[in-house]
Amino acid sequence: MNSYGNLFRITTFGESHGPAIGVIIDGCPAGLTIDEDFIQSELDRRKPGQSKITTQRRESDIFKILSGVFEGKSTGTPIAIVIENEDQRSKDYSHLSDIFRPSHADFTYDAKYGNRDYRGGGRSSARETAARVAAGAIAKLLLRSVQLEINAYVSQVGDIAAPHYTQLNLSNTENNIVRCPDEPTATKMIALIDKVRKEQDTVGGMVTCIIKNTPVGLGEPVFDKLHAELGKAMLSINAVKGFEFGSGFEGIKLRGSQHNDEFYKEQEKIKTKTNHSGGIQGGISNGADIYFNVAFKPVATIMQDQKSVDKAGNEATVSGKGRHDPCVVPRAVPIVEAMAALVLADFLLRNKVSKL
Amino acid sequence: MNSYGNLFRITTFGESHGPAIGVIIDGCPAGLTIDEDFIQSELDRRKPGQSKITTQRRESDIFKILSGVFEGKSTGTPIAIVIENEDQRSKDYSHLSDIFRPSHADFTYDAKYGNRDYRGGGRSSARETAARVAAGAIAKLLLRSVQLEINAYVSQVGDIAAPHYTQLNLSNTENNIVRCPDEPTATKMIALIDKVRKEQDTVGGMVTCIIKNTPVGLGEPVFDKLHAELGKAMLSINAVKGFEFGSGFEGIKLRGSQHNDEFYKEQEKIKTKTNHSGGIQGGISNGADIYFNVAFKPVATIMQDQKSVDKAGNEATVSGKGRHDPCVVPRAVPIVEAMAALVLADFLLRNKVSKL
Amino acid sequence: MNSYGNLFRITTFGESHGPAIGVIIDGCPAGLTIDEDFIQSELDRRKPGQSKITTQRRESDIFKILSGVFEGKSTGTPIAIVIENEDQRSKDYSHLSDIFRPSHADFTYDAKYGNRDYRGGGRSSARETAARVAAGAIAKLLLRSVQLEINAYVSQVGDIAAPHYTQLNLSNTENNIVRCPDEPTATKMIALIDKVRKEQDTVGGMVTCIIKNTPVGLGEPVFDKLHAELGKAMLSINAVKGFEFGSGFEGIKLRGSQHNDEFYKEQEKIKTKTNHSGGIQGGISNGADIYFNVAFKPVATIMQDQKSVDKAGNEATVSGKGRHDPCVVPRAVPIVEAMAALVLADFLLRNKVSKL
Amino acid sequence: MNSYGNLFRITTFGESHGPAIGVIIDGCPAGLTIDEDFIQSELDRRKPGQSKITTQRRESDIFKILSGVFEGKSTGTPIAIVIENEDQRSKDYSHLSDIFRPSHADFTYDAKYGNRDYRGGGRSSARETAARVAAGAIAKLLLRSVQLEINAYVSQVGDIAAPHYTQLNLSNTENNIVRCPDEPTATKMIALIDKVRKEQDTVGGMVTCIIKNTPVGLGEPVFDKLHAELGKAMLSINAVKGFEFGSGFEGIKLRGSQHNDEFYKEQEKIKTKTNHSGGIQGGISNGADIYFNVAFKPVATIMQDQKSVDKAGNEATVSGKGRHDPCVVPRAVPIVEAMAALVLADFLLRNKVSKL
Repeated sequence: MNSYGNLFRITTFGESHGPAIGVIIDGCPAGLTIDEDFIQSELDRRKPGQSKITTQRRESDIFKILSGVFEGKSTGTPIAIVIENEDQRSKDYSHLSDIFRPSHADFTYDAKYGNRDYRGGGRSSARETAARVAAGAIAKLLLRSVQLEINAYVSQVGDIAAPHYTQLNLSNTENNIVRCPDEPTATKMIALIDKVRKEQDTVGGMVTCIIKNTPVGLGEPVFDKLHAELGKAMLSINAVKGFEFGSGFEGIKLRGSQHNDEFYKEQEKIKTKTNHSGGIQGGISNGADIYFNVAFKPVATIMQDQKSVDKAGNEATVSGKGRHDPCVVPRAVPIVEAMAALVLADFLLRNKVSKL
Repeated sequence: MNSYGNLFRITTFGESHGPAIGVIIDGCPAGLTIDEDFIQSELDRRKPGQSKITTQRRESDIFKILSGVFEGKSTGTPIAIVIENEDQRSKDYSHLSDIFRPSHADFTYDAKYGNRDYRGGGRSSARETAARVAAGAIAKLLLRSVQLEINAYVSQVGDIAAPHYTQLNLSNTENNIVRCPDEPTATKMIALIDKVRKEQDTVGGMVTCIIKNTPVGLGEPVFDKLHAELGKAMLSINAVKGFEFGSGFEGIKLRGSQHNDEFYKEQEKIKTKTNHSGGIQGGISNGADIYFNVAFKPVATIMQDQKSVDKAGNEATVSGKGRHDPCVVPRAVPIVEAMAALVLADFLLRNKVSKL
Repeated sequence: MNSYGNLFRITTFGESHGPAIGVIIDGCPAGLTIDEDFIQSELDRRKPGQSKITTQRRESDIFKILSGVFEGKSTGTPIAIVIENEDQRSKDYSHLSDIFRPSHADFTYDAKYGNRDYRGGGRSSARETAARVAAGAIAKLLLRSVQLEINAYVSQVGDIAAPHYTQLNLSNTENNIVRCPDEPTATKMIALIDKVRKEQDTVGGMVTCIIKNTPVGLGEPVFDKLHAELGKAMLSINAVKGFEFGSGFEGIKLRGSQHNDEFYKEQEKIKTKTNHSGGIQGGISNGADIYFNVAFKPVATIMQDQKSVDKAGNEATVSGKGRHDPCVVPRAVPIVEAMAALVLADFLLRNKVSKL
Repeated sequence: MNSYGNLFRITTFGESHGPAIGVIIDGCPAGLTIDEDFIQSELDRRKPGQSKITTQRRESDIFKILSGVFEGKSTGTPIAIVIENEDQRSKDYSHLSDIFRPSHADFTYDAKYGNRDYRGGGRSSARETAARVAAGAIAKLLLRSVQLEINAYVSQVGDIAAPHYTQLNLSNTENNIVRCPDEPTATKMIALIDKVRKEQDTVGGMVTCIIKNTPVGLGEPVFDKLHAELGKAMLSINAVKGFEFGSGFEGIKLRGSQHNDEFYKEQEKIKTKTNHSGGIQGGISNGADIYFNVAFKPVATIMQDQKSVDKAGNEATVSGKGRHDPCVVPRAVPIVEAMAALVLADFLLRNKVSKL
């Protein structure tokens, strides 16, 4: 199914090279002021062609709201958003109709569905994430009502890593094209991506996301733990291979006596002195910063010839064409934020019925 | 909500120290032979008191099927399974009714619900996972019908790590109490856990899971990608802090030209020469081994005094009592397998309607 | 699936002659006082053997809460309720294992599932409704917090009908064994049921339900209209053949000018002078009385020999045995109320997120 | 929520006088040939302005598919359909922005959401059903693969009723503008509607629906009984007040010995001699004709002045303006069929996992 969320639920549609992509947001409470400029600015952060280190495909990604908003406010009915596909150079893909590109979804879609829209990856293209970003912008508007803030940034490209988030000024993220708030690291990252691009290759990266001011109590016990939904949401983004929050994989090596976060009281609030828990205990937010890392593999489309097979299993060569990102993480930053916003917005609503 | 799965759906209930825990499995196809001995053997792998390196709490974890099975076969109606709680030393916990244990769910449950069953963690206790293991055993029985096999093992305890899974004989996993199939590593892990236990501390660990013979085509595009659901399922297990599949976090450092898995044909099947994809492309299984890692933090309950606060925010001391695991991963192995089985069983059924 | 409801969700399990039946209530807000005596009293209204006009099967229908309640209050975690089956005279049914009883679910279950628990109808038995009544009692407790009241009664048996609800004193419903608040009508109904019973036959009937003090705004537009969910909930009860609310089927004959309900203001509230709308406009409650009728067919099990076929299609005779109701409606009254309560409780919670 | 269905799931969006309405169909199996002419012909049956007895609002209701179809076949990805609103005479409604029209959804939407798109009823307008008809057309295409046929017709207008369906030739339904297959009755119905229209009033009616060739086994026991979902689907259509299937409300008066449907074998199939069950036993189709009645109230918008109140509770007069149907049932016929098709398509898919 192509839906996400329980009470704040989105359903996306659309293929890379079809007439349009879009999303229905069902469950947005009535009375929310819908700031269309903000939605556009979020889409602009994700759109292709932003800089020399992103794909040169041209899409203006202008959205149109078809329903659910009246006189600038949400009405409680479904908000439908459509984004037309403009730059549909489908002929770039006609040579791929029968060939399975390595580490793409061509083979698995074909096996699952029997047929597929092969143009630009069709439904499996990351173009679908534009719909998520539009919906996520509305989720962010809802979360502003409780002062919740979500900030993601590029924390690693290849083997170049930024310092820990507590040592960064996150307001600097948008100051450079790689979206790393540490300028010296950003410079190195950009150089690496540029180098990789010239080598007609791609490279992986990591996005880190920080969520501040989360109300205490969001998340549901057992299966729908806050971090479990965040994990699912992130892993659903194209090219993601891993998710960790709080102490993450490093926490394996710690002792309980080192890892436990001591409670104390400050200004009438119960807080923790450390935050190995990553702001989530027992699947429920405790009010501290939520932070997590998302690992992205190198983009599968490279500008080199690769061996593969066609539908019949005959040997074939995949020749790199089209316009693609040498590294996905700079454009993934707003996508990570959008998915986080969708998760949090949903839990914010779900929590309204947790007690009498 | 306390349900998991779409077509093969479980709903669990029960608190650590209430009368019983249990699960309803809704959506198990009719006609499946229900092997009760197998279900019990799975529960036995998870139950407490198995060895010197697990908690000494005594639960026989004998289950009872209340419905949905007739003359040894599933009838298509809900299968309800109940496991009584026997060893309910609630008094071990009465001193904790008002105190928030560090890095436990006490504070967050209290904030979310206003009241809570504080005995042994109540609903937030890992005791709930026994219900998952019982349900997972039935999912495994269903998956046997397509020869799908799931094998998890302990791959790391503290900083002691086992070799890569391709160098291991997974049939050795149950040969030692730590459930690591590499005997030399297992010996070191056991020694470390024993040392930590004597220090009245705990330590983290990692479970790796290998799924073989997955039919091609399982998983749904976009949000319900196979690895996204596996990630959510794993992150929903108590104490889990991270999930990665295929190349995972290491894949960040690779180039696309290194990471891409080349397709070829062998014995009328399309396969890949390498498997950085971890058996999943575009969210859908490609038939290769699915493999993933699950990071567990050190257990929060330690036998040392810790500073904390009570409900009113007054300073308080949490004194370690009760019977707890010094390291959760040996008992987590069957839980990881159970959750993986529930995910796969659900996608197996969901895939029956993917095409005409 | 065996679940009902979105936020206040129940999942029932159990067969007529298995070890037990039961229900999990997931989504009951924390902090609700759980009055166990009230739950039992509701179950007692439904249980068999109450009077000469109901089945003589003996079930004490004593329930047990396994989870979700601590110190008398709901904790926000799943409330599991189990009712053991005591009077399992399975041998009454062994002669039916291969024969399809007319107008029962034997044939359709067999076709759908391949096998079935034939004892007493198994899952298709109305015994399952005891679980609904237990859950409905908790829904009623939740609805009391907003003063909402649900009262059903028997409004017709065969061709004997009670006056319109506005002419009845609904507090008299429990005064007689047929549960019709109009005593003269009740006397006739009882006589008719008794006559039918002696003829070894059965007869149909109607239950009318009145809901007072519904908050304005419950129900969701489009598919989940309040009356659409009430209709589904009622039609899901065994033997129900029809549902109408407000003007119902009679409304077909009216003109718009007669049918429209004029708005006016009284004591600072907007009300309607008439109530053909049945308290629901556009799928959403308007604060007026909700009223609806539920049609029940005559019970299919009759004490006469009937022609039928067996699994192989050979002619066979079904001989009436066992202990059955000559008319289902007296015992259906608490079931109708329970289902109505479950619908309203769910919408009460859902409405908490309709606006900012 | 604005979604319907489990595996074949639709989500509709759009307001009467916004830019567009539409639907996403999620879960249509891949490989279905999408006959666009058929979809358009179904929309044409519903569209306004067809005849003198329907509203004169002009909408061409031309649809556009944005996704999910490639080279004429469904791809398994979401099918998004958009229908632009052309004839948006919003000014017809500006005088109603603060007034609650009697027996409309104005008051309840306002109470529920705080604000509303008052133009033409906004989301509560029956215009939304065009989206259902488009989706239902695709469901019909899917059902054709199992030869299932759905035929609805107008069986009553006011007090003029058609003979029982078994005495009608359903292929005549489209031969007249009222969609009653019995020509003499149709003539009387048309005359009545025309008379009512001239009186600036409206009148109620009934639609009967016949489903032939349903495979045995569709429908789920307990809550999601086939007739319970049909009932919900029908009751979710604007202006519907009642639903009955098989013997319906008349069945109340029968004895079990009269009502039971005797099984027999014919041509290797098990059938029933009578069909009071309406093709459904225990919530599951038995292969016989499914038939049901749907009661529609008179349309609330009448061309007469009516008393009402405004938002503040002040007395106000609603003056009939705009272009409306004097009787809704002729245009409701394709809507009833569409909703029936959506229910059956969903159960067809759900039944694919009922047994091993």
